[in-house]
Amino acid sequence: MLDQSTICAITTGTANGAVAMIRVAGENAIAITDQIFKSPKSGKKLVDQKANTLHFGRIINGDEILDEVVVSLFKAPHSYTGEDVVEISCHGSAYIQQELLQLLISNGARLAKPGEFTQRAFLNGKMDLSQAEAVADVIASGSKAAHKVAISQLRGGFSNELSQLREQLLHFTAMVELELDFAEEDVEFADRTELKKLLNQIDVVISRLVNSFQLGNAIKNGIPVTIAGETNVGKSTLLNALLNEERAIVSDIEGTTRDVIEDTLNIDGITFRFIDTAGIRTTEDQIENLGIERTFQKIDQAQIVLLLLDLTKKLDKNIERLEEIRERIDDQQLIIVGNKADESGSPAIRQLMAKVSLDDHENMAFISAKKGENIDYLKELLIETVNLSQLDNDEVIVTNARHFEALSKANEALQRVVNGIDMQISGDFLAQDIRECLHFLGEITGDISTDEVLGHIFKNFCIGK
Amino acid sequence: MLDQSTICAITTGTANGAVAMIRVAGENAIAITDQIFKSPKSGKKLVDQKANTLHFGRIINGDEILDEVVVSLFKAPHSYTGEDVVEISCHGSAYIQQELLQLLISNGARLAKPGEFTQRAFLNGKMDLSQAEAVADVIASGSKAAHKVAISQLRGGFSNELSQLREQLLHFTAMVELELDFAEEDVEFADRTELKKLLNQIDVVISRLVNSFQLGNAIKNGIPVTIAGETNVGKSTLLNALLNEERAIVSDIEGTTRDVIEDTLNIDGITFRFIDTAGIRTTEDQIENLGIERTFQKIDQAQIVLLLLDLTKKLDKNIERLEEIRERIDDQQLIIVGNKADESGSPAIRQLMAKVSLDDHENMAFISAKKGENIDYLKELLIETVNLSQLDNDEVIVTNARHFEALSKANEALQRVVNGIDMQISGDFLAQDIRECLHFLGEITGDISTDEVLGHIFKNFCIGK
Repeated sequence: MLDQSTICAITTGTANGAVAMIRVAGENAIAITDQIFKSPKSGKKLVDQKANTLHFGRIINGDEILDEVVVSLFKAPHSYTGEDVVEISCHGSAYIQQELLQLLISNGARLAKPGEFTQRAFLNGKMDLSQAEAVADVIASGSKAAHKVAISQLRGGFSNELSQLREQLLHFTAMVELELDFAEEDVEFADRTELKKLLNQIDVVISRLVNSFQLGNAIKNGIPVTIAGETNVGKSTLLNALLNEERAIVSDIEGTTRDVIEDTLNIDGITFRFIDTAGIRTTEDQIENLGIERTFQKIDQAQIVLLLLDLTKKLDKNIERLEEIRERIDDQQLIIVGNKADESGSPAIRQLMAKVSLDDHENMAFISAKKGENIDYLKELLIETVNLSQLDNDEVIVTNARHFEALSKANEALQRVVNGIDMQISGDFLAQDIRECLHFLGEITGDISTDEVLGHIFKNFCIGK
Repeated sequence: MLDQSTICAITTGTANGAVAMIRVAGENAIAITDQIFKSPKSGKKLVDQKANTLHFGRIINGDEILDEVVVSLFKAPHSYTGEDVVEISCHGSAYIQQELLQLLISNGARLAKPGEFTQRAFLNGKMDLSQAEAVADVIASGSKAAHKVAISQLRGGFSNELSQLREQLLHFTAMVELELDFAEEDVEFADRTELKKLLNQIDVVISRLVNSFQLGNAIKNGIPVTIAGETNVGKSTLLNALLNEERAIVSDIEGTTRDVIEDTLNIDGITFRFIDTAGIRTTEDQIENLGIERTFQKIDQAQIVLLLLDLTKKLDKNIERLEEIRERIDDQQLIIVGNKADESGSPAIRQLMAKVSLDDHENMAFISAKKGENIDYLKELLIETVNLSQLDNDEVIVTNARHFEALSKANEALQRVVNGIDMQISGDFLAQDIRECLHFLGEITGDISTDEVLGHIFKNFCIGK
């Protein structure tokens, strides 16, 4: 059933490399490479060489030498995909890479589809589905936190736990279904108290995972922050003050791509995504209201709201702005930022502090965006505002929307099972709900997978993964 | 004397790779990697493993796992640089690559300078200087022809021949210098007839190499083509017609960079570099003359001149243009292109053909740039115009300006030796000229090299090579 054809692709980056690597995997990976690779020293064929060894030699196309390369030889099942794998390290010229691919193809390999190496690793049991998905996350992660979450998922902590719970639940289903065979005798193979205990245990795990998604998603894609405030209050100046020094750090790491629509900032390994609220104007009251409405819409998308107030303006006006924002805020964190602290002097700061009492979701800072004063403190507040305790405890965090959806559905099915037991519904209905719960749990770990699901997961990979 | 410190760098490309490779080379390459690499299966240290083997494991930073990697282990002298070398294949995230580099550096490695791996390969006798220089050319080569020339130089055919001739010449110098010790006895250890025979042989080789540079340089950097003609004659249309379909091919090969100032076109594996002659206007005679003067300057830079004539214009005018260009042309190839052949009809074509007689360096084509008619024929003419016989015969071709310069100087010194013999100058002058010739030959193969020369050669490499 498994596709064992030999596939090949460039696995390394495309720009300015001294070395590039082409991976060949599948039944004939070694035989195909042997047709185009000559080792001048040993003269031996790769097929006669030991696994996990390196071989220097030349790639030959008829009489012509294409390149001098080093070949890494892996033999099934001890390789990335679980098949025979050859990795050819050649010189990084685009010409050589393309010619080498062509040569492999004309000798019987075919170009790998996006994610096909990792898909094969999954299908050959080298990793479960959530690990396979983590491969793409590990490669894409641009911040310390995103990397930590992805690498922990790659190691499989996540789905191990779910698999074990699923295993236990599977046992109960079998018991419940056995009861159905003896329906007339009114026996109870599945201890309902034990079952409820297990269901509760699963519930705790799933709920924690579901709840971790907000943080997980934010870490993966950046924590959305909206800067609210009137146009002249210094929003762009603040954004520049926040971004200026950090931008250099981002560009130090070659190959990171920045979202062009929104500005992202990496503070202490956490990515913040600043949602642009440009377009607010205060020339006329009517237009101002329109601007505020737009800002409100941006607030709905945010996890943190920075309300920027102009300390040189009237206190009442600022309090009014604050109340408007507070009314609109749901469960977002609010950081009230008094700007132009250098121009206003301390009386304005004291007045605002006296008038505003902060609740649990709120914080306050006084800065000068223009002079860059107190920006570091504001950054500390941003970090503090993100609840990172889950990260520090090495707890599993869900970052994948597909997992979140399956977990949520599993949770719903679970609640139906619990309610069913409480309402003493018949065994066949109970079994059906448990089956459903098992299904969604299985979708995460890949114990249950359809070609459609797999196709969807791996199509978002790049070629070469 | 040799720097044996351990150096590290990313050797693979920076954009969108699934896998990246970091190379560590030097005295402590294996020991340093052992501090951050754990093999979960064998638990063995890399230092206890055999050379030329592959090892799966984790990169560890304290308690944290940075990545799961495959390590390639090479031991001195059987490695690229001739030292102990470890190549770490990690996931291609920019974050992981940077962290891994930091980790290596904090454990005692330092970042490699541009070209430092290859420089060490040269200093450790793994390759001669012209081979080391070919590494950069192999990586940079974007066309079949450029690649062929670079790979042949990498294999060392070039400097082998020179080294042998230099060796023989060295023997003669020793003989001539021996004569100086016996100056009063008037002996002749160095047979002048034999010496002249050898000098002649060297002259043939060097002259061929010097002459190959025009083609070699053109292949490496693209054959410079200037399209001359008045503004409305259809220069841009022709350029677009030439480039249109080919551009797609260029962009198929990811990672190729195009010169932004000039347009390049790859025909049958040869790169043509079209020199922009925009800026010529014909509104007034004075300005027209200025425009022509500018075109003339571009012609001096070209190897091929395409003179574009408008067939719908008067024959006399076109002949006048042709004469102007012919007067200016030195040893460039000229292709006379009659454009707008679709509008003018065949009488205009016949008239021009009747009036113009082509010499050896000239060719003629009739096209419609707008309709893309006969563009393929023009491309054939371009290929034909380049003398590629040297390429087909697998002859050595010089592409490197440094080699060209050294060869030219060697040639000059050689002529002085020959003249000296003919004029029967004294042995000490003769020896001095031979020494000079030896010096320049040695500069190419690296038998003679100064830190300054080496610094200059390797500073143009990228880091990681």
